Amino acid sequence: MYRKIKKRAFEIIQCADENDPESKRFDLFIVALIFINLVIAVVETFTVPYVLQQVITNIENISVIIFSVEYVLRVWTSDCLYEGLSPLQSRIRYIFSFMACIDLLAILPFYIPLLFPIDLRVLRALRIIRMFRLFKIGRYTDAFITIGKVFRSKASQLFSSVFVVGLLMIISAVLMYNVENTAQPDKFDNAFSGIWWSISTLTTVGYGDIYPVTVQGKLLSIIIAMLGIGLIAVPTGIITSGFIEVLNEEKQQIADVVDEKCYCPYCGHRIDE
Amino acid sequence: MYRKIKKRAFEIIQCADENDPESKRFDLFIVALIFINLVIAVVETFTVPYVLQQVITNIENISVIIFSVEYVLRVWTSDCLYEGLSPLQSRIRYIFSFMACIDLLAILPFYIPLLFPIDLRVLRALRIIRMFRLFKIGRYTDAFITIGKVFRSKASQLFSSVFVVGLLMIISAVLMYNVENTAQPDKFDNAFSGIWWSISTLTTVGYGDIYPVTVQGKLLSIIIAMLGIGLIAVPTGIITSGFIEVLNEEKQQIADVVDEKCYCPYCGHRIDE
Amino acid sequence: MYRKIKKRAFEIIQCADENDPESKRFDLFIVALIFINLVIAVVETFTVPYVLQQVITNIENISVIIFSVEYVLRVWTSDCLYEGLSPLQSRIRYIFSFMACIDLLAILPFYIPLLFPIDLRVLRALRIIRMFRLFKIGRYTDAFITIGKVFRSKASQLFSSVFVVGLLMIISAVLMYNVENTAQPDKFDNAFSGIWWSISTLTTVGYGDIYPVTVQGKLLSIIIAMLGIGLIAVPTGIITSGFIEVLNEEKQQIADVVDEKCYCPYCGHRIDE
Amino acid sequence: MYRKIKKRAFEIIQCADENDPESKRFDLFIVALIFINLVIAVVETFTVPYVLQQVITNIENISVIIFSVEYVLRVWTSDCLYEGLSPLQSRIRYIFSFMACIDLLAILPFYIPLLFPIDLRVLRALRIIRMFRLFKIGRYTDAFITIGKVFRSKASQLFSSVFVVGLLMIISAVLMYNVENTAQPDKFDNAFSGIWWSISTLTTVGYGDIYPVTVQGKLLSIIIAMLGIGLIAVPTGIITSGFIEVLNEEKQQIADVVDEKCYCPYCGHRIDE
Repeated sequence: MYRKIKKRAFEIIQCADENDPESKRFDLFIVALIFINLVIAVVETFTVPYVLQQVITNIENISVIIFSVEYVLRVWTSDCLYEGLSPLQSRIRYIFSFMACIDLLAILPFYIPLLFPIDLRVLRALRIIRMFRLFKIGRYTDAFITIGKVFRSKASQLFSSVFVVGLLMIISAVLMYNVENTAQPDKFDNAFSGIWWSISTLTTVGYGDIYPVTVQGKLLSIIIAMLGIGLIAVPTGIITSGFIEVLNEEKQQIADVVDEKCYCPYCGHRIDE
Repeated sequence: MYRKIKKRAFEIIQCADENDPESKRFDLFIVALIFINLVIAVVETFTVPYVLQQVITNIENISVIIFSVEYVLRVWTSDCLYEGLSPLQSRIRYIFSFMACIDLLAILPFYIPLLFPIDLRVLRALRIIRMFRLFKIGRYTDAFITIGKVFRSKASQLFSSVFVVGLLMIISAVLMYNVENTAQPDKFDNAFSGIWWSISTLTTVGYGDIYPVTVQGKLLSIIIAMLGIGLIAVPTGIITSGFIEVLNEEKQQIADVVDEKCYCPYCGHRIDE
Repeated sequence: MYRKIKKRAFEIIQCADENDPESKRFDLFIVALIFINLVIAVVETFTVPYVLQQVITNIENISVIIFSVEYVLRVWTSDCLYEGLSPLQSRIRYIFSFMACIDLLAILPFYIPLLFPIDLRVLRALRIIRMFRLFKIGRYTDAFITIGKVFRSKASQLFSSVFVVGLLMIISAVLMYNVENTAQPDKFDNAFSGIWWSISTLTTVGYGDIYPVTVQGKLLSIIIAMLGIGLIAVPTGIITSGFIEVLNEEKQQIADVVDEKCYCPYCGHRIDE
Repeated sequence: MYRKIKKRAFEIIQCADENDPESKRFDLFIVALIFINLVIAVVETFTVPYVLQQVITNIENISVIIFSVEYVLRVWTSDCLYEGLSPLQSRIRYIFSFMACIDLLAILPFYIPLLFPIDLRVLRALRIIRMFRLFKIGRYTDAFITIGKVFRSKASQLFSSVFVVGLLMIISAVLMYNVENTAQPDKFDNAFSGIWWSISTLTTVGYGDIYPVTVQGKLLSIIIAMLGIGLIAVPTGIITSGFIEVLNEEKQQIADVVDEKCYCPYCGHRIDE
């Protein structure tokens, strides 16, 4: 009986089976609650009347309770998740999985102030991470799978280009600090200001709060801005080639199915003649 | 007789048949009138002499009358548009179609002040939407068809990436509001300011009217700006793979035509041997 | 004799034959002179000592004389350029060709002030157009041919996307003028300010001299900035698919050459067996 | 004996053989030291306590000694590097190679002040170039090889587009200087300001420290900003087509291996029948 309830709870909470109406309803309810929490996070940054503030606080409290219960249930039923592991090993592995960590981070800021009397302000923002659970729905749509596949297949190339960009960023930051520090000691006060400038330039954002004024600084900035074009072009090229690769693979799979019909696709002769 | 006139009106107004000179002349006349209205909309933002102002008002009034007559005719003849629907169903369906809504929005701002005495200023701008009707001409050129085909075939992937960007935008907006609110209460006064900043950064526009000043805020901004590169790279990759897919399909169609000549392109043997 | 000299002059000036040393030397001389004129155009914007100013003026005068003689020779020999046209027709056609117009524009600003005593300042800048003649050298390198081929083959698609962008620019400019005019009458004073803003946003430059301050204006700006991503993604997709098309064509040509060897590339059987 | 030690030193320092544990340990040590030096270069831009400053100076001195010894060893053993050259020729060739020049530039700023009593500030920044040695590790990963292959195979096309951009930059800079000089003599004071503006616009950075204010200047800026989109689109297209080319080549190599199994992949007939 206990095992049966647990099995059912596992199916409803973890599986997200399309044909299981209770599981589907549960997922929709949780996502709706996350969405409401997101709207609240945006709304409470505005000055709202006292009554609405009360309603918001109540919804937040109820949400945290629901999310806490959900988290406990997920941990409890996680021994059905991994095959060939003991219940304890399964639970430890689940607790340290990426999605479980996010789930914990989403409810933790509510409990910490009960233990330590510290400021809630910055911690409250962490709650937004609940939103990432929305991706779980997307996990089952083809488009998300394709985009994910592209990033995974090109991970090493993307990481390499990010590495080169990171190196370029730090080198240009220290160079710019040395060049501009005497001319603008208040703006380029340390290497972090240089990094802030180099990111602003490499990504072509260019807020305009920090920029070189000396001729040498401007020459360096011109070189970095030109290389910033490469920063956009190289990952775009990598990602595009990934999309085309995935496209061709899908076509190949369709072609392979046709091939199984045992006819040469060009002559129309049977191969087993 | 009545049916015959209606049929002819339908052919002239709705069909845009290349071989029907009257239909073509009508389309060119409407597009020219839309173009004149666009020029007027730009010109009347400048301070113009009184005489020109009079001319502009007259052209605008005449245009609205012509567009109104055209709209009524389109609704009247729309029962020929959809097969297997009753005249009333056809008309309701047409009225709620995208292009008909734009046509209505283009003429509505003129009539509303006759009923309610409210300010015309903002409503007048809606009239520009008439311009979108120009796309109807493009609908028949190959380039527009190709671009449209690409967007349609990649709609789900583009929507997915827009969804991820939207989520990223809201999360970073609320986080940035929490981080920067105490340092710059006048700039980051609510989550909307955060959204304005995150869009400005993600799209790499960077006006420079709002930017983080604290170290934590700058670190968050660096992460968002780097992810903004992905915002450009992923849709570019999707759209490019779409263009290449369309290109290959067109080539395949040509190849299929060649195949019909009944020779294997590799061996040179007749397939019907 | 006259015809012979003219033929030779034509070969030297117009043909740019790789195997003709005199023609090659002439081209290098003209390009070097253009390059010197470009350096001078940059240098004379700085405050230079009187002696250098004298040298610059002399070089400029000599250059204009050489360019003028070259232009006259090009027009004189242009009757050898087009087959099946009378000498007069050839010359008229050449004078109105794109490169000849640029050549004329490059020398004209020098002669006009001799006729009309007007300010040289702005006209002087036109002289830079001489630089475009440098592309003539590139005309013979493969890379320029490939880039040119890509733009030609995708011209209609690129034109379509530029047309959509132009429409979007004007519509957003007039809308933004209507939305922001009352809040910032000094910044958004007419539709041209709106166009300046919409280009600044669509191209993601974002100087920060003009931006919306009202909530409606910011919402409109968010939409335009998001569409600006498409402005980058669509032409990139078009141009990339063009590069891949050209790549495949070149491979096909190599494959076709292999095919002419009359062996099936897959079986190794002779086709004429 | 002397040759044997030299051979071994060469193997450890130059070869970077995966299966040689001493060579691998040496490489890791040098890269770790470069990384520590990079961290120091960033840290010493902040105001640090006296004790830490002492530690930093010591680490820097030790690093320079190690790097100097390494440089001398590399030059000493470089006669094993190039086949068919005399030891002296090999060494001269090695000293003028790109990586050796960077190695020298990384240690030179430390010795120069011992000879000439000049300011270290700007020279110190050059030391960062040591970081580039980190790429040597990457040299053996597939991703870096792929990215490098793409840039090499498309070098001529990329150079052509950079050439066109450079030309566009200079022409627009001089034109803008002539247009805006009278309106903003303090901002557009010479052609270099124009170049600073044109790079800022072409790369879509747009700091906002310099922008046109006249109508003609804004019109010119609109054209340059639109062409700036091409500046992003063309290299992206070139690089993407390069990635796809490399992808296809790799697939072809796999396909060629399959072909060696001696069956026609289309008919299923043995080729050696």
